[in-house]
Amino acid sequence: MRFTHESLPQRVRFATGEADAALAAEIDRLGARRVMVIASGREAETAARITSEIPVALRHDEVVMHVPVEVAERARARAAEHTVDAIVCIGGGSTTGLAKAVALTTGLPIVAVPTTYAGSEATDVWGLTSDGTKTTGVDPRVLPGAVVYDASLLATLPGELAVASGLNALAHCVDAMWGPRVDPIDQVFATEGIRGLAAGLPKVARDSAGVEGIEQTLYGAYLAAVSFTSAGSGMHHKICHVLGGMFDLPHAQTHAVVLPHVLAFNAPSAPEAEARMASAFGAASAVEGLAGLRTTLGAPQALKDYGMPEDGIAQAVAPILAAIPDNNPAPVTEANLAALLRAAWAGAHPDKREES
Amino acid sequence: MRFTHESLPQRVRFATGEADAALAAEIDRLGARRVMVIASGREAETAARITSEIPVALRHDEVVMHVPVEVAERARARAAEHTVDAIVCIGGGSTTGLAKAVALTTGLPIVAVPTTYAGSEATDVWGLTSDGTKTTGVDPRVLPGAVVYDASLLATLPGELAVASGLNALAHCVDAMWGPRVDPIDQVFATEGIRGLAAGLPKVARDSAGVEGIEQTLYGAYLAAVSFTSAGSGMHHKICHVLGGMFDLPHAQTHAVVLPHVLAFNAPSAPEAEARMASAFGAASAVEGLAGLRTTLGAPQALKDYGMPEDGIAQAVAPILAAIPDNNPAPVTEANLAALLRAAWAGAHPDKREES
Repeated sequence: MRFTHESLPQRVRFATGEADAALAAEIDRLGARRVMVIASGREAETAARITSEIPVALRHDEVVMHVPVEVAERARARAAEHTVDAIVCIGGGSTTGLAKAVALTTGLPIVAVPTTYAGSEATDVWGLTSDGTKTTGVDPRVLPGAVVYDASLLATLPGELAVASGLNALAHCVDAMWGPRVDPIDQVFATEGIRGLAAGLPKVARDSAGVEGIEQTLYGAYLAAVSFTSAGSGMHHKICHVLGGMFDLPHAQTHAVVLPHVLAFNAPSAPEAEARMASAFGAASAVEGLAGLRTTLGAPQALKDYGMPEDGIAQAVAPILAAIPDNNPAPVTEANLAALLRAAWAGAHPDKREES
Repeated sequence: MRFTHESLPQRVRFATGEADAALAAEIDRLGARRVMVIASGREAETAARITSEIPVALRHDEVVMHVPVEVAERARARAAEHTVDAIVCIGGGSTTGLAKAVALTTGLPIVAVPTTYAGSEATDVWGLTSDGTKTTGVDPRVLPGAVVYDASLLATLPGELAVASGLNALAHCVDAMWGPRVDPIDQVFATEGIRGLAAGLPKVARDSAGVEGIEQTLYGAYLAAVSFTSAGSGMHHKICHVLGGMFDLPHAQTHAVVLPHVLAFNAPSAPEAEARMASAFGAASAVEGLAGLRTTLGAPQALKDYGMPEDGIAQAVAPILAAIPDNNPAPVTEANLAALLRAAWAGAHPDKREES
C-alpha cells in the first residue's frame, strides 16, 4: 500500500427540483453580490428560472464547444467590465469549460449547475482551443467550489444522448480502476460510480424524464469524473483516443464498443478491482455485469459499423501499444492487442481470448 | 437522493518506511523554509530521524492531552518568535491537536505524521481545554494540508492499545452510516474504512509490528475519521457519551461493548447500509461480521465489568433518548433502549431483541 491521494475541495449538493434554492444558498455562502451567469441560448429559460433568487450582474450566452480562446477572452473582458464576484454556469461541458476559462485568469469562484452527465464540474482540468489545437491544464482555481445537481434539469435530455453520455461515464469508472495514478480511494469512488450508473441508466433508457434514474446516473457521473481525474487515462481511453483520431470514429460509440473488450482483457489480472466492479454491477462477474447492462441499453457492438476499416486494426496496434500505461494489469502484446481490436471491430463477444 | 457533501482539501500519502522522503516532498511543495516540529518527548527519536531532510527552525515537545489553552499559547508564542512557516506534527491526537491550535490563530500549514490510529489528522475539528472545560470548533485552517502515513512508525504501539484504538475507529465507521448529516459518500468512505479495519485488526492483534496489518488499519482509521467528521455522531456515540460521563467508564471498552448492540438494533432498519457493511466485513450480515471480528480480537463484553452499576440502566435512558439523532434508522423508545442497555450491561448476545 503505497499511494498519494489528493482530495479536492468541493461542496456537492443533490437537490432535485430545488436548484434555485440550492444555488441561492451557495451564492450566500460566498457572499457574492454580482454574479455572472453563463448559459447558452438553449438553457436561457432554465437559467432565468433558477437564478431568480440570486444577484445577477451579467448574463453571458456565448458558449462554444471546446472553448475557443477568443470566446474565453470575450467572457473574461465582460466579467471584468461588470466587476462580477462569482460565476454560475448552467449547462454541459462547454458551458462549464467557459466558466473555468474565466476563473483561470480571474480566480473568480464558480458554482456549477450541470445539465448533462459530462462531469467537467467535478474536475480541476481546463481546456482552451486556439487555431484548432486544444491546450489543457490543471489548476485549482478552475475547480468549481460548489456543484448543484438538480435531476429535473436533465429531464429534457433525449434518452439516447443520456444513455450514450452515461456509458461514457461508465468507461471513466472502469478505466479509472487501472489508470496510471490509481489509488485505493479512486477505486472506491469508481466502484460507487459504477453502482450509480448501473442502477440509473436502465431507468433513464426506459424513461428519460424520470428523476430517480437521472439522480442515480448523475451521482454515478459525478463519481466517474472524480475518480477518473485522479487516476488518469487507462488502457481503454488510450485505445479509443488512437482509434478516434486515426479513423475519425464517433466518440460515444467507440467508447461503448471498446469498453467490454478492455474489461474482459484486464479483469482476470485485476482480481480485487474485478470483485469490486462485480459487486457494483450486482453480477457474478464484472464482465457479466457490463454485458447485462449493455444488453439492457442496446449498446453499440462493432467498430466496423462506425467506419473503422479492417486494415485499421494492424495500423492501430503500434501507437496504442506505445500509449498504454505501464501499470496496466494484464501484460499487453502486439498479438493480444490485435486480437482485442479485431473482436471490437467485428463485434465479437468479449471474452478471455485476448489474453492468449 | 437529497444531500450535501463537502470534500475537504487534503493530500494523503501512504509511504511505509519512507516518512522522511514523503515529509521532505510535502515540505518542498509548500516551499517552507522554517519548520516547527511538534513531537512529544516519547517521539523525539522518531521525529529527529524523519525530519533530517527538512529545514527545521524549531522543535517543540510540550504536548499535553486535551490541549490546555496555556500550552497552546506557549506553542503559538514560540512559533511567532521563530517565524516558522509550516508545522510538522509527529504523534497521536494530542500532538496533532496542538498543531491545530497553533494553525487556528496563525494560519500556518500543517503536515501531519500520525503515530496512532486516532484520526484527528483527517479532520478540520480543533479542541482546547480551559479550566477543565473542553471547547471544540470547526475551522478549515486546522485541517492538515498533507498527511504522511508510515506504518513502520506504529510498529512499536502495544498490540492491545492498537486493537482498542482500531475498534474505536470501527465504531466511527459504523456510527457514520446513520450519523445526523450522513450522505451516500460518507457511507462509501465508512464502508471502505470497515473493510480496511476488518482486514487489518486481526493481523495487528496477531503481530502488532507487522506493517501490512498496520497499513490496512491506518487506511481504515483514516477513512473512519473522514466519514465520521462528515456524518456526525450517531446513536452509538450518544450512548457512549452519556454512559461515559455518568459512570466514568473507560472510553475504549465502553465503545467496544456497546457497538454490536447498536449495530444489531439499527441494521434491520437500514438494509442498504447493512448490506454495504456485511460486504465490507466479508460476512453474511453486518452483525455476524462484527461478531466474528470481536471474537478474533477478544473484545470486551459487558459494561458491568467496567464499573457500570445495574441501576445505571434506568438512569441513562432519558438523557440518551434526548440525544439520539432524529434520523436514526430504527425508532428508539424507552423500552427498547433500556433493553439494549441491559444487554450491553450484562454482556448478553446482541440480537434483535432490542427492537421488540
